Amino acid sequence: MNSENFSISEKIVSPSYIRQGSQARRSHEQLIRLLLEQGKCPEEGWSESTIELFLNELAVMDSNNFLGNCGVGEREGRVASSLVARRHYRLIHGIGRSGDIAAIQPKATGSSLLNKLTNSVVLDILKLSGVVTSCFVVPMATGMSLTLCFLTLRHKRPKGRYIIWPRIDQKSCFKAMITAGFEPVVVENILEGDELRTDMEAVERKVQELGAENILCIHSTTSCFAPRVPDRLEELATMSAKYDIPHVVNNAYGVQSSKCMHLIQQGARVGRIDAFVQSLDKNFMVPVGGAIIAGFNESFIQEISRMYPGRASASPSLDVLITLLTLGASGYRKLLAEQKEMYTYLAQELKRLAAAHGERLLHTPHNPISLAMSLDGLQTQSGKSVTQLGSMLFTRQVSGARVVALGNKQMVSGHMFSGFMSHSEAYPHPYLNAASAVGITRDDVTLCIKRLDKCLKSLRKESSARSGSPIPLTGQEDHAGEHVYKCNKK
Amino acid sequence: MNSENFSISEKIVSPSYIRQGSQARRSHEQLIRLLLEQGKCPEEGWSESTIELFLNELAVMDSNNFLGNCGVGEREGRVASSLVARRHYRLIHGIGRSGDIAAIQPKATGSSLLNKLTNSVVLDILKLSGVVTSCFVVPMATGMSLTLCFLTLRHKRPKGRYIIWPRIDQKSCFKAMITAGFEPVVVENILEGDELRTDMEAVERKVQELGAENILCIHSTTSCFAPRVPDRLEELATMSAKYDIPHVVNNAYGVQSSKCMHLIQQGARVGRIDAFVQSLDKNFMVPVGGAIIAGFNESFIQEISRMYPGRASASPSLDVLITLLTLGASGYRKLLAEQKEMYTYLAQELKRLAAAHGERLLHTPHNPISLAMSLDGLQTQSGKSVTQLGSMLFTRQVSGARVVALGNKQMVSGHMFSGFMSHSEAYPHPYLNAASAVGITRDDVTLCIKRLDKCLKSLRKESSARSGSPIPLTGQEDHAGEHVYKCNKK
Amino acid sequence: MNSENFSISEKIVSPSYIRQGSQARRSHEQLIRLLLEQGKCPEEGWSESTIELFLNELAVMDSNNFLGNCGVGEREGRVASSLVARRHYRLIHGIGRSGDIAAIQPKATGSSLLNKLTNSVVLDILKLSGVVTSCFVVPMATGMSLTLCFLTLRHKRPKGRYIIWPRIDQKSCFKAMITAGFEPVVVENILEGDELRTDMEAVERKVQELGAENILCIHSTTSCFAPRVPDRLEELATMSAKYDIPHVVNNAYGVQSSKCMHLIQQGARVGRIDAFVQSLDKNFMVPVGGAIIAGFNESFIQEISRMYPGRASASPSLDVLITLLTLGASGYRKLLAEQKEMYTYLAQELKRLAAAHGERLLHTPHNPISLAMSLDGLQTQSGKSVTQLGSMLFTRQVSGARVVALGNKQMVSGHMFSGFMSHSEAYPHPYLNAASAVGITRDDVTLCIKRLDKCLKSLRKESSARSGSPIPLTGQEDHAGEHVYKCNKK
Amino acid sequence: MNSENFSISEKIVSPSYIRQGSQARRSHEQLIRLLLEQGKCPEEGWSESTIELFLNELAVMDSNNFLGNCGVGEREGRVASSLVARRHYRLIHGIGRSGDIAAIQPKATGSSLLNKLTNSVVLDILKLSGVVTSCFVVPMATGMSLTLCFLTLRHKRPKGRYIIWPRIDQKSCFKAMITAGFEPVVVENILEGDELRTDMEAVERKVQELGAENILCIHSTTSCFAPRVPDRLEELATMSAKYDIPHVVNNAYGVQSSKCMHLIQQGARVGRIDAFVQSLDKNFMVPVGGAIIAGFNESFIQEISRMYPGRASASPSLDVLITLLTLGASGYRKLLAEQKEMYTYLAQELKRLAAAHGERLLHTPHNPISLAMSLDGLQTQSGKSVTQLGSMLFTRQVSGARVVALGNKQMVSGHMFSGFMSHSEAYPHPYLNAASAVGITRDDVTLCIKRLDKCLKSLRKESSARSGSPIPLTGQEDHAGEHVYKCNKK
Repeated sequence: MNSENFSISEKIVSPSYIRQGSQARRSHEQLIRLLLEQGKCPEEGWSESTIELFLNELAVMDSNNFLGNCGVGEREGRVASSLVARRHYRLIHGIGRSGDIAAIQPKATGSSLLNKLTNSVVLDILKLSGVVTSCFVVPMATGMSLTLCFLTLRHKRPKGRYIIWPRIDQKSCFKAMITAGFEPVVVENILEGDELRTDMEAVERKVQELGAENILCIHSTTSCFAPRVPDRLEELATMSAKYDIPHVVNNAYGVQSSKCMHLIQQGARVGRIDAFVQSLDKNFMVPVGGAIIAGFNESFIQEISRMYPGRASASPSLDVLITLLTLGASGYRKLLAEQKEMYTYLAQELKRLAAAHGERLLHTPHNPISLAMSLDGLQTQSGKSVTQLGSMLFTRQVSGARVVALGNKQMVSGHMFSGFMSHSEAYPHPYLNAASAVGITRDDVTLCIKRLDKCLKSLRKESSARSGSPIPLTGQEDHAGEHVYKCNKK
Repeated sequence: MNSENFSISEKIVSPSYIRQGSQARRSHEQLIRLLLEQGKCPEEGWSESTIELFLNELAVMDSNNFLGNCGVGEREGRVASSLVARRHYRLIHGIGRSGDIAAIQPKATGSSLLNKLTNSVVLDILKLSGVVTSCFVVPMATGMSLTLCFLTLRHKRPKGRYIIWPRIDQKSCFKAMITAGFEPVVVENILEGDELRTDMEAVERKVQELGAENILCIHSTTSCFAPRVPDRLEELATMSAKYDIPHVVNNAYGVQSSKCMHLIQQGARVGRIDAFVQSLDKNFMVPVGGAIIAGFNESFIQEISRMYPGRASASPSLDVLITLLTLGASGYRKLLAEQKEMYTYLAQELKRLAAAHGERLLHTPHNPISLAMSLDGLQTQSGKSVTQLGSMLFTRQVSGARVVALGNKQMVSGHMFSGFMSHSEAYPHPYLNAASAVGITRDDVTLCIKRLDKCLKSLRKESSARSGSPIPLTGQEDHAGEHVYKCNKK
Repeated sequence: MNSENFSISEKIVSPSYIRQGSQARRSHEQLIRLLLEQGKCPEEGWSESTIELFLNELAVMDSNNFLGNCGVGEREGRVASSLVARRHYRLIHGIGRSGDIAAIQPKATGSSLLNKLTNSVVLDILKLSGVVTSCFVVPMATGMSLTLCFLTLRHKRPKGRYIIWPRIDQKSCFKAMITAGFEPVVVENILEGDELRTDMEAVERKVQELGAENILCIHSTTSCFAPRVPDRLEELATMSAKYDIPHVVNNAYGVQSSKCMHLIQQGARVGRIDAFVQSLDKNFMVPVGGAIIAGFNESFIQEISRMYPGRASASPSLDVLITLLTLGASGYRKLLAEQKEMYTYLAQELKRLAAAHGERLLHTPHNPISLAMSLDGLQTQSGKSVTQLGSMLFTRQVSGARVVALGNKQMVSGHMFSGFMSHSEAYPHPYLNAASAVGITRDDVTLCIKRLDKCLKSLRKESSARSGSPIPLTGQEDHAGEHVYKCNKK
Repeated sequence: MNSENFSISEKIVSPSYIRQGSQARRSHEQLIRLLLEQGKCPEEGWSESTIELFLNELAVMDSNNFLGNCGVGEREGRVASSLVARRHYRLIHGIGRSGDIAAIQPKATGSSLLNKLTNSVVLDILKLSGVVTSCFVVPMATGMSLTLCFLTLRHKRPKGRYIIWPRIDQKSCFKAMITAGFEPVVVENILEGDELRTDMEAVERKVQELGAENILCIHSTTSCFAPRVPDRLEELATMSAKYDIPHVVNNAYGVQSSKCMHLIQQGARVGRIDAFVQSLDKNFMVPVGGAIIAGFNESFIQEISRMYPGRASASPSLDVLITLLTLGASGYRKLLAEQKEMYTYLAQELKRLAAAHGERLLHTPHNPISLAMSLDGLQTQSGKSVTQLGSMLFTRQVSGARVVALGNKQMVSGHMFSGFMSHSEAYPHPYLNAASAVGITRDDVTLCIKRLDKCLKSLRKESSARSGSPIPLTGQEDHAGEHVYKCNKK
């Protein structure tokens, strides 16, 4: 209510109470003022009532909510279903204009503010981990957002045909290159101890072989499933700079890890990183469907945002804004701290479990989120046991635990991947992945370990019933030495 | 509640009442059964309670809502804010998988059902107007969806560099081609009476000039602002077939018009239409951010859906499903009938108003949605008056009424458009656009006419105060004959 | 947002857009201002967004929503469940104080405003039908609210033991007297034509017999099931005045009928009405649980409100306020007009149906809401058929159609009612009631008639199968003459 | 979805996923089954999704939500505003019937289940603390619920005119007796140390003086503001039994305290307690407006429930059911444990603060919730300082901290209370109350102490500025000895 309405209210309810009510309102306004002024994620999270007050205020500024509006355009933010209107807080016009996804809409002042503030608050959070200059939220998942980056680069590098890509067995990022119309050049990883790491020599060889000017960009990855670990970003960034090749980083769920963010930070400091892309849902615990495109050069990031043709859904922006206002910077930091703590707990529990079953937690210290436990015993037992474990876990509502057997081959968009899912043509162990991602709870870990234990025991029983000779529970030899082994046979 | 729980309830509340309650539940279940079985938009709309019951049922099937789930993956559908969870009905996993936006997610059975059903229900609605074979909802607006179509075509036509595009002055669809990395070949329209129509000769000339194999596709448009009218789809489709060039139609807000849908239908019957793209928000009264990609060849539409790299937001699918279930097919047909009725009303009122102000309603019978009224008098009066009218309408909360002055030039992504916004290098009149789009009400029209009248009067007064000689109110000569006049001077 | 925040926003989004947004906000504020200033139901209903904005503003003023509040009392408006908080718009403190249900709470300025405004808006609506001086909403249904009125009167009439009550067969209002500790003196109705009407002579006889000073009050009724009709309020009010006996009217669902309201108006004008009580749910289409206590003497109504010991639920007040703001006075009048129209339609359809089945629509012109159709044929056929019809209708989801057989006896709180449910010891016909109450739709009537027709046909078939002689379908003699017949045999 | 719909879904999404979805649904159903079967508060709280699923299921069983219903009654659960419908989960029919607030409604099976289950779950929670036989939730606050108990007793004790009431200075419970039409007989408390306790001798004297048969009941109190402490329930219950006088306990916010519940338990074991009444909001953190009437004799509790004339709001029942399902028994126990812990913390902090300001935490070990700190210094300083402290705390958003000055007199419903608010005619100290009630947080305590400290300092400064002689900060003599002092001078 405005001051006039407060005054009138004093005739209905005693003035001193109204004054207190008005003062209470001001404390919400004050929070909103800080947000508008600084464009930063508030240190302490807001209450639901402040958030809803704020969203209502934004909605009131959009023309579809004007009490006296008459609309004679082809797009007036009309909504047929009140369920739909409500779930979007009556913010209907989306974000951006035909020209630019970051542009202001005359018809939708509130939605425009929402868009600007979301980008600003997200930038503030990215800055927690270093110098980022610019970013924007885009209502497309990581893969399509990478495609947009590649399409933007095409205009700057008309001769670019190839994208150098240290192998990671995840379809979206591979298809992102295909969709954009480029030819991915897969660089196999090398095995160092249990870890799969970037083969820098192979990368450079490819650059020289194909000719720098024919290469659109290097496309590297941070967050990934163990035993693959984040790419050697500093070295890749240095090489990018050396050969003047753009460098795009797939930082899918890396915002949640200070290690991944530090790698990007360092890469940009010592070499070249043009853009890095991260998923909203995986880092900020919102529904699937949005990403952040960020970089260190504001004008290039703006070029990407201007490349998006037309308006876009405000839904992912709204989700991440609500979430960050709810958590506050302190709440988000707390989540990150818990992710780290749970990583340690998960590692320790997996290690214990592995030992009890004659297996081994693979040693992948460079991967800050994902862990892998060998399944050599199961593999010995029967080829099928490994995949059977996967479906047993699915049935027992253990989600996200991924079982990787040896020897998969898969054709993806015309490219044959040997050893598919293992990021390597010949990884020496079958294994099981588990990750400590943001939002994981102690219960998740405990339950997973318990159920995994049961599944492994039950598989062993089955096997011993079949063969008569049970798999020994402990003492399995550690056959993965610390030598560097090249998976890439080319 | 399941039958067991109903039985137990009979001990608490009398069995005959519980039986009636259980029977009442069955009538909701019955509606859901029909939807699942037939995949069609129900004839009569559902109540909010059936819709929410159904959405809750879907949500319960997603792993993030499993009561006993433990998640150790990198993407578990966790949500930090309960405001966010609720507004998405706890459907968090989005739609699609890395491989395909139409694919089923093992972790998200409910969301997968939602996705399949939405596509099926939307297809049913598109079929109201003719034979469509396949379609899918994509959480990107029309422009980016067109880009996706072009990117898919690239893989089929590696030599394609050009896109033939009968001019329409709307940035998104132009940028869609640029973003996809192609060179738009702008074909100017010809003036027939007041209408701007496709110049078929010029199109064919361009095809021959550039060579069919170098042309990625023809990119035509249905819905547009008057005095431009929908492209000659039959002739373009025939030419596509003749030269074996793909044909993509931008049907942005054409679903609401039986004329536009009929054009597409006819085009596909007599010639070739590979895909047509339409906006969700403009046709179905949902928030901005989604589109439907549809076509007559299922396998090509699937190729496009497989081209989308990664998961995607379920939000636009959820919105359109809720909306169509709320409206029912009969409700949607009613909206379309109202659109037509309001078009007639708007035309009649604009005609009356134009006459009173010495202007003319341009004669654009081929445009079923948008209308244009000349502003010659204003132009004569002062160059600025036309644009001033625009801002006056904005201030008076008339949204969507677009004022087009003569002689704008604008550079869009490196291409200079003369006469920008008028779809023509030299349209003979400045004008004002108003559209009767789906959801428009009689009040919208009445208020718009009233305010427009005031603005025009006030501008005339101003002018007469300045010049001493008022603009005559009536009797202006009708200077737009029925002759065919080529705007395109090339 | 306050003006400061709008100013800051101008640095983010262009000032002219922000100004328009701010102006749009003012139009909501303006509506709120009018409400605060005049305390009247707005003529036109508010949009959901204005209503929610307003409720959020109220909530912000309650101490439980103060951002910096610390609470060390025994009642701090804490809420354990966010589902609960949200559904009450975070208005948790209820209404009233220990002293008075209409009092202002220092801890809850917003809730206090809500309470005052609700009473004021409801008063405004009651005034549509005449001069009412004062009223308040109480979160108790009609029965308990009547009890509160009687308890208040006790303090003014310590000798009062009896309540004179023209018979109406509805338990709540009877129990209201018992609960308050008084002895109901049941005055049987007289039959005039088909109608059961107040026996004024019997009332006066009772008053003289018991002695006016021993009578707490006369307790009359307006809205009731046909063939009973509203009491002769003018004559009862006149008698109240003559003997100086208070007069309380049970106007349960009479607000929706101008006839009932007019009766009260007239009663108060010519005689004495101390208070009249009406249900919120039955008149305003809100959930069960609230009532309005109203009267023509402000100080007596205040006495009642002060009699309520302690705080009370704000939920019914909130519901009725939301509803009246949504409808607006014009929307409410429209509902009342529809009620009348549907009454005529229902009467006509019942008459037609009755004729077809050899029955008769009872002639009860004084009852503006409820109608009754004779079931003499069914009764003749078999004693059970009448009750069977009731359960058939229940099973076929016809709700509210009440079947009244002859000869029921029932003991209610120690009083034996002969002919229970028929308001009379010996009504000449069994019958079926149907009512046209506010919110009824044409579909309700049509479906009811259709199903009733089927049930009657099916009962006749059954009977004719049993007896061999079918009940004739038409031509049944109209055996209820226009003579005045005394049901009351005393 | 029922099994048929799951089967059909298997044609849309792979059967194994649907099976998992169906199994996930069963786990929600299983929770609901347990609730229906056992009628107990679940040990672990339910998720919001289970709760909403359940409430939707209930709503579906009410006739107003039947898809094919036609209503021709006067009360059909129609709702004019969808905001209102939604906030009540479409449960519109309230609870109870004209006959009985606990009765089942044929039109509202879901609401009836809700009512039964709520009473059952609440009973389960009350049983945590001992043997209770029966209870029901009533949508009236404590005061009016007490009135209902007294009104019920009237029918059993027609000669009862007086209610014996050990003084507690709270208006609602006093007015509850007045409203019911009885004469409260106020028995002053006696001072034991700092505590005000029941004067058993005075009670017995009154009983003998008035004659047991003329006494409607004894009306005692548990939870109250220090320095009053809960009544001596065992002794009062014994006396009730001895003289055969009913005994009603006002247990307003005593459910949260095992001490209060134990007192009731003991009272009922050794003597007589007919009913005890507690507030929903104060004990269960729900909005104001409901109470629980409970007792050890099922048939008497039923008599009370049958005394309520008519239907009633389901809103308080819905709130408490949602809350208890959300918390679970374990969650509720946790809240109670925190209440105890915070009581200790508050006591310790107040003691520290008191010492620092030359005041004293009054020694009231029998009061498990409320504490009092003397304000002798302030009183000495100036008569106004004590009340000034109150308004300073109000302005600084310290809510619930109650300042009690000496010598207030107040007339309440015709009875003059000397020393009003202090439960005593001449309590020796002015004081400040603070309570540790359920839901209080550490922050509440810390902030309150901090602000209180500031206020006290600022008042001292003011005073010393006025007088020149500051109040000494420490070393004030402890003038409240352990002697028993009778406040009651009669």
